[in-house]
Amino acid sequence: MSEQVLFQLQSAKLAWRALMAKSTVEKNKALQLMADLLLKNQDKILAANAQDVVIAKVEGLSGPMLARLELNEKKIISMVDGIKNIEGLEDPIGRMVSMVTRPNGLQVGKITVPIGVIAVIFESRPNVTSDVVALAVKSGNSIVLRGGKESIRTNQVIVDLLRQALKNAELPMEAIQFINSPDRKVVGFLLNATEFIDVVIPRGGESLIRAVVEQSHIPVIFQYKGVCHTFVDASADIDMAVQIALNAKVSNPSVCNAMECLLVHRDIANFFLPKVASKLFQEKVEIRGDQETVHLIPGSKLAEALDYGREFLDLILAVKIVGSLDEALEHIQKYGSMHSEAIVTNDYENSQKFLKTVDAACVYVNASTRFTDGGEFGLGAEVGISTQKLHARGPMGLAELTSTKYIILGSGQIR
Amino acid sequence: MSEQVLFQLQSAKLAWRALMAKSTVEKNKALQLMADLLLKNQDKILAANAQDVVIAKVEGLSGPMLARLELNEKKIISMVDGIKNIEGLEDPIGRMVSMVTRPNGLQVGKITVPIGVIAVIFESRPNVTSDVVALAVKSGNSIVLRGGKESIRTNQVIVDLLRQALKNAELPMEAIQFINSPDRKVVGFLLNATEFIDVVIPRGGESLIRAVVEQSHIPVIFQYKGVCHTFVDASADIDMAVQIALNAKVSNPSVCNAMECLLVHRDIANFFLPKVASKLFQEKVEIRGDQETVHLIPGSKLAEALDYGREFLDLILAVKIVGSLDEALEHIQKYGSMHSEAIVTNDYENSQKFLKTVDAACVYVNASTRFTDGGEFGLGAEVGISTQKLHARGPMGLAELTSTKYIILGSGQIR
Repeated sequence: MSEQVLFQLQSAKLAWRALMAKSTVEKNKALQLMADLLLKNQDKILAANAQDVVIAKVEGLSGPMLARLELNEKKIISMVDGIKNIEGLEDPIGRMVSMVTRPNGLQVGKITVPIGVIAVIFESRPNVTSDVVALAVKSGNSIVLRGGKESIRTNQVIVDLLRQALKNAELPMEAIQFINSPDRKVVGFLLNATEFIDVVIPRGGESLIRAVVEQSHIPVIFQYKGVCHTFVDASADIDMAVQIALNAKVSNPSVCNAMECLLVHRDIANFFLPKVASKLFQEKVEIRGDQETVHLIPGSKLAEALDYGREFLDLILAVKIVGSLDEALEHIQKYGSMHSEAIVTNDYENSQKFLKTVDAACVYVNASTRFTDGGEFGLGAEVGISTQKLHARGPMGLAELTSTKYIILGSGQIR
Repeated sequence: MSEQVLFQLQSAKLAWRALMAKSTVEKNKALQLMADLLLKNQDKILAANAQDVVIAKVEGLSGPMLARLELNEKKIISMVDGIKNIEGLEDPIGRMVSMVTRPNGLQVGKITVPIGVIAVIFESRPNVTSDVVALAVKSGNSIVLRGGKESIRTNQVIVDLLRQALKNAELPMEAIQFINSPDRKVVGFLLNATEFIDVVIPRGGESLIRAVVEQSHIPVIFQYKGVCHTFVDASADIDMAVQIALNAKVSNPSVCNAMECLLVHRDIANFFLPKVASKLFQEKVEIRGDQETVHLIPGSKLAEALDYGREFLDLILAVKIVGSLDEALEHIQKYGSMHSEAIVTNDYENSQKFLKTVDAACVYVNASTRFTDGGEFGLGAEVGISTQKLHARGPMGLAELTSTKYIILGSGQIR
C-alpha cells in the first residue's frame, strides 16, 4: 500500500514543479478541457456512480449520506459549470502583493506563488472532486485526493477524465493523484508525509476533521463545525429579527452556517418570541428553550444542558433569553464554534461592541448567518471554510490556496 | 507542574479577551512604560544575569551560547530601543484588508485582528524576551514564554518588569506568562494545549525546532535552518559577484541568511574562483569544493558529500562548479532549505527563470542573501523568519502576528 502511495506523492511533487510555472492561458485551457470531458462522459460517470450507489445501499449507507453520494445529470452540469466558473476567475498566482524600494536601492517585492501539494481528504460527495481539482490547477498546486470508500468508483472515473484533460492541455497529469486504496491506514500515511504534502484540507463531518487534526504533522486548514448564534437585541426591528432568525434556521438547516441557537434580550422576549415561534412551527422546527422561553412559547420543549453548543444540522433550535448584550457575548464565547455569529440590533454602540468582541470567522450585524459562503462573499469559488486563525479564516477562495515569496532585485548590494 | 502551567495558560487566554480590545494609544503607553522600567532597572537585570552566567559557566555552557546569554549595558539599551521602535510602528490591528458591497447591499469586510495566545519557545538569548513581548502586546496578543533554563533568572526579572509595565498602563498583566519550570515535559504540555494556545513560534537551533514541530498539535511557524546558495552565472559582473559572495559568507557567518554554498558557472570558473578565493582566504574562510574547484583553488579542500546542504554557521564554504543554470537550480532544489537563494547574473532571461523557479522564502538577483531580515526588508521589526509556506513566509513582522475576521454589515438581508 504505502509504496504505491509514496510513488503517487513523489509524482505529485515532481509534477508541481512543472505546473507551478504554467501561464494562466495554459491552466485555463486545461480547465476548459476538464469541463468538456466531464460533459461528454456523463454517462460513464453516472454508470460508475450507479455501481457505487448499489453497493452503498447494500452496505446500509444512511439517507443523507446516500443523497450526497448519488449523482444525476443536473449535478454533473453543476460540476461542469463550477469548473467553467473557476476558469473565469482571476489567476491568483503572480500577484505582486507589495513592492518597496529600500534606501539602498534594493527592490523588495512579495509575490503570490502556489503552495505546492495540497491533500484533500473528504467524505462521500463526488462533486467535491472536480471542484477542488479545478481550484488546485487554477492556483498552480498539485492535489492528492482521498475520498470516502463509498464513492471510489465514481471518483476514479472523474479523476481519470480530469487527468486526461491535463494531458490533452500538455500539463502534467501527475499533478492530480487519487488515492483509491480503501485502507484507513492510508490517511495516517498521508498525514505524516511532510516531505511531499504542504497542507491538508479535510472536508466532512466533525469526527473526520478531528481525526485529521489530531494525527497530522502537516498544517491543516479546517472547520470543526458551525454552532452559529443569532442574538436579538432589545432595540432590534422585530420584523427584521423574525425574518433573519427564520432564514438562518430553515433555509438550509443541514449546513454549517445555519443558526443553531437563538439568543433573545429579555426586554423584547415576550413580543418577539411568540412571533418567531409561530413562523418556526410552520416550518416544523422543534424549539428547545430555557424555562422562560418554554413559558413564553407553548409547544416548545425544555432544553437540556447539552443543547447549547450543539450542532443540530436539523430543524431543531435552541433558544435562550439573556438579560444583556454582555450575557449574550458570554454565551457565544462559551458555546460558539468561532464560525458565524449575528446580532440583530438598532443600537450603534451594541453593534460595534458585538463586531469587536466576538471571536469568530464571520461576525454579522442585521443579516442571516447563512451568507457565510465563498460565493456570497464574492470570492467566486469556495475551497471550504476555516474556523482556525492561521493562513485563512472564514470562506476560502483561490487566494487561500496561495503562499508568497519575496523577490529581491538588486544591483550588487551588500550588507 | 502542569496545574500551575494550566493556570497560566487560562490566565493568558482570559487576559487576551481584555487586551484584544485595547486601543493603539493604550498599547503604546504600555510599551513606553516597558522601555522605561527596563532602563531604570538595568542593574537588577544585570545582577540576575550575572547569576545565570555564573551557573552556566559551572555547568559548562559553551562559548557562543554563553555569549548569547550574557547581557551588558549596551544590550539592555538595545532591548529598550527595540521596544521604542515597536511603539513607533503602525498598529497592525483593525486594518480593513478589503471591503466589498455585494449586489444585495451586504457590506463584507475583512479586518485584521489579533491571533490570540502566542507561545514562544526559545533558547538562551534573554534579549529575545523583551522583543517578542513588545511585538505581542502591540499586536494585541497574549504571550506565553518558555526560555532556556540557563537564562531563567534573567528572564524572570525582565518578565516581572514587563508585566509591571502592563499593570501600570492598566492593561492585563496576565497577558504575559513566563513558564519558569525547567522541566522539559512542560514543552510537551504546551504543544498539546490546543484550547489555550493559537500558534507556537520556536526560536533556536534546528534540533529544538524539529522537536517542536514533531510534537506540536498547535500550528507552528518556523524555519529549520538556512542553507543559502549564491549562483554566479556565466554572464555575471565578476567584481560584483566577488563582493556579493564575500559579503554573503563573511559579514556574519553564524546567522541563517549567510551563504553556505557557492555555485559557479563553468564558463567563468577559472576567472572568478581564484579571485573570490583570495578574498575568502584573507577572511580565513575554509573552502570545500568539488574536484574541479580544488584544481582551480590551491589551498581548498575536497568537499565530502555531506558538505552540500550543510549549515556550517561558520567560516566554511562549500563550492561547486555547474554547467548551466538548470544544474544550479537542481542543486538548490536538492540541497537548499527554502530560505534565501541568490543569482548573480547579467542575463535577463536567467534572472527571470531563477526568480520564478526557485522555491524559497526569498529569491535574490544581484544582491547578498544577508539582506533576509525584517529590518532590511522594511518591516520595522522581526518576529522571526518562516521557511514554511502557510500564514507567513520569509521575515515576519507585526502583520504576521495577526489573523483576520470577516465583518458583515446588513440591513435585514436573508438568503
